Amino acid sequence: MSTQSSYEYPALVSYEPNPKPVWKLEKVKIPPKAPGDHQVKVRLVATGICHSDIIVGSVPGNAGPGFSYPRILGHEGVGIVEEVGSGVTTTKVGDKVILSYNYCGNCDLCRDNKQPYCLQWVALNIVGKPGLFEDAKSGETVTGGFFGQSSFAGASIVSETSVVNVTNLIENDNELRLFAPLGCGVMTGSGAVLNGAEAKTHDIVMVTGLGGVGLGAVMAAKIAGCREVIAVDRIASRLDLARQLGATKVIDTSAAGEKGDLVGEAARVVNGQRISIVIETTGAVPVIEACMKAMGKRGRHLQLGVPPPGTEFQFPLSTFFSDNKRFECHYLGETTGQEQIPKMIEWYRDGKLPLEKFVKFFPASDAMAAMQSMQDGSSIKAVIVW
Amino acid sequence: MSTQSSYEYPALVSYEPNPKPVWKLEKVKIPPKAPGDHQVKVRLVATGICHSDIIVGSVPGNAGPGFSYPRILGHEGVGIVEEVGSGVTTTKVGDKVILSYNYCGNCDLCRDNKQPYCLQWVALNIVGKPGLFEDAKSGETVTGGFFGQSSFAGASIVSETSVVNVTNLIENDNELRLFAPLGCGVMTGSGAVLNGAEAKTHDIVMVTGLGGVGLGAVMAAKIAGCREVIAVDRIASRLDLARQLGATKVIDTSAAGEKGDLVGEAARVVNGQRISIVIETTGAVPVIEACMKAMGKRGRHLQLGVPPPGTEFQFPLSTFFSDNKRFECHYLGETTGQEQIPKMIEWYRDGKLPLEKFVKFFPASDAMAAMQSMQDGSSIKAVIVW
Repeated sequence: MSTQSSYEYPALVSYEPNPKPVWKLEKVKIPPKAPGDHQVKVRLVATGICHSDIIVGSVPGNAGPGFSYPRILGHEGVGIVEEVGSGVTTTKVGDKVILSYNYCGNCDLCRDNKQPYCLQWVALNIVGKPGLFEDAKSGETVTGGFFGQSSFAGASIVSETSVVNVTNLIENDNELRLFAPLGCGVMTGSGAVLNGAEAKTHDIVMVTGLGGVGLGAVMAAKIAGCREVIAVDRIASRLDLARQLGATKVIDTSAAGEKGDLVGEAARVVNGQRISIVIETTGAVPVIEACMKAMGKRGRHLQLGVPPPGTEFQFPLSTFFSDNKRFECHYLGETTGQEQIPKMIEWYRDGKLPLEKFVKFFPASDAMAAMQSMQDGSSIKAVIVW
Repeated sequence: MSTQSSYEYPALVSYEPNPKPVWKLEKVKIPPKAPGDHQVKVRLVATGICHSDIIVGSVPGNAGPGFSYPRILGHEGVGIVEEVGSGVTTTKVGDKVILSYNYCGNCDLCRDNKQPYCLQWVALNIVGKPGLFEDAKSGETVTGGFFGQSSFAGASIVSETSVVNVTNLIENDNELRLFAPLGCGVMTGSGAVLNGAEAKTHDIVMVTGLGGVGLGAVMAAKIAGCREVIAVDRIASRLDLARQLGATKVIDTSAAGEKGDLVGEAARVVNGQRISIVIETTGAVPVIEACMKAMGKRGRHLQLGVPPPGTEFQFPLSTFFSDNKRFECHYLGETTGQEQIPKMIEWYRDGKLPLEKFVKFFPASDAMAAMQSMQDGSSIKAVIVW
């Protein structure tokens, strides 16, 4: 039980990076006005931490118009609706909700059912909105609206588009908090395999990097019945876990003799069969280059991991062309939360998405430790319970 | 009327390149045996010349197993079936046929309806088969089977898979010879837009290089009703033609001030609107690099033009990722001749594919001049009439 006043909520607030992200666990208030048009106020139950939070928290405050600190990040929230603004039709007070990303619904790409590529993406998900929070002590304005939700807080004003109403799909609150990563990480990995690559039983899928996104991809490749699923990481325990979740082959890139020869190892573990899909979640150029070589004819490389700013690499066009390969940058599983989250809950019930094997809960008072555990890799998916 | 004996046919024979292709107009015989299993003998009426013939004719004879000279290239043939081998079910003697590429029908990709990426592609289309022709004078063996057809000859032994039976779709022989480019060039360009990129009315399509492939793409973008179609070339007459065929904007890269600033020009002609699809047919790195920059969010670059051997370029990963772009190498319009050629004939009848505007016929005796006209750009699509 919290002892805070009814209008003060704990929050992990981001300050100007130095250049690493600066997080502080503080108290915030939500200004005393009702949620606006097509907004809802959500009492957060839990929020997953994603590497994108760390990446965006490293962006300088002068990076672009409207981008400012202090701000509240967080984009894997789950909670209960506490208040609804005008025009809201998809949820009501008391509903259980899983939060996902925001999109305009009106641009060419949204109308084409490609909402992760919404032309208003940066404004609606990255820049955020000033004035949605204020510092409980100083009264200073704190920016919200990250991914339409800014869920690193005990409560938040959320865009209706970010809300997936799961009231009828959830059995209890323990389950709700376990589902926090469904709104981004697991959706991104599983959707990339199923919707982005449209994996089939004849495919051999290689997944590089075994965080929440990579493990989501491994589980989805198993769901799709892919011929082989190769999991690649440098942490042995993650490779063991990947095997439990569906990987048929694993490659430990930290092992002597294998480091630097991912191409050869990949060919070896599948006995020279054609690797047809790569799901790359690390964003590291040497891994990307190896993946592009490791793929066989008509291979499809889906880049999900965010590369460091300014990254370029030497693209082997001639061989890429003669093998008819594809290099594609994908977001958010090529789907919406509204579409994919109910499916993922069903997979969970069928034992195909055992999230409990890699989600680690931290109480709100340990939010800083939760963040640290994502940065040092000791958690695969840390979830803060508010 | 030819004065040759009934078993001698004119042919454009390729010899070891020096390093440019060496073509000789000679007489060949087809060895006196019936077409084999799933083969047909076709009396060629006409054959289009494609830049791929020139590219493959530049490959040294020691390039790979089975690759040898002298050989007969040509892969845009049309003709009449003269004899059928065992097992042939799709055509009979006297049928009018348009020839396209060859595929195995049994590999993962063929079974997935992606025949242009057949895992037996090189063997079935590039390497060819020895012994399908012999030199009429010396009796020396001449390799055939290029794209399953080797149609730079008055007659050829063709794989049944390369045959599209159009007997019921053709009104006369003049029409048949006009349709020669349907088997490769026009199918590649139009299919890339319609099947590969799945262009929609909201798309803005940029086509670089206005040969048969590029013009096929322009016409298809018009068929798809795309918002804008930008045609790019350095030959003014081709830009004029592209306008007639459906381009709404043109960029002359030979014009002073525009050369080298394709990115800026592209943005200018569409007034900053988002270019969503690029169809790149030149294979030239500066053009490719400009296209990748010119595309907007979620842009899709389809590389159709063959890059020179060993081509690499600097890939701008970070911006490519943040704009969710895709770079894809496509073959043959992501379709089969059996599927696409009847559709293209229908478009021709509806006036949507006015091939007569860019096809130029040469009698067989002028085959060398026809080839020269493709190499120097004075023909857009030269067709040899046998």
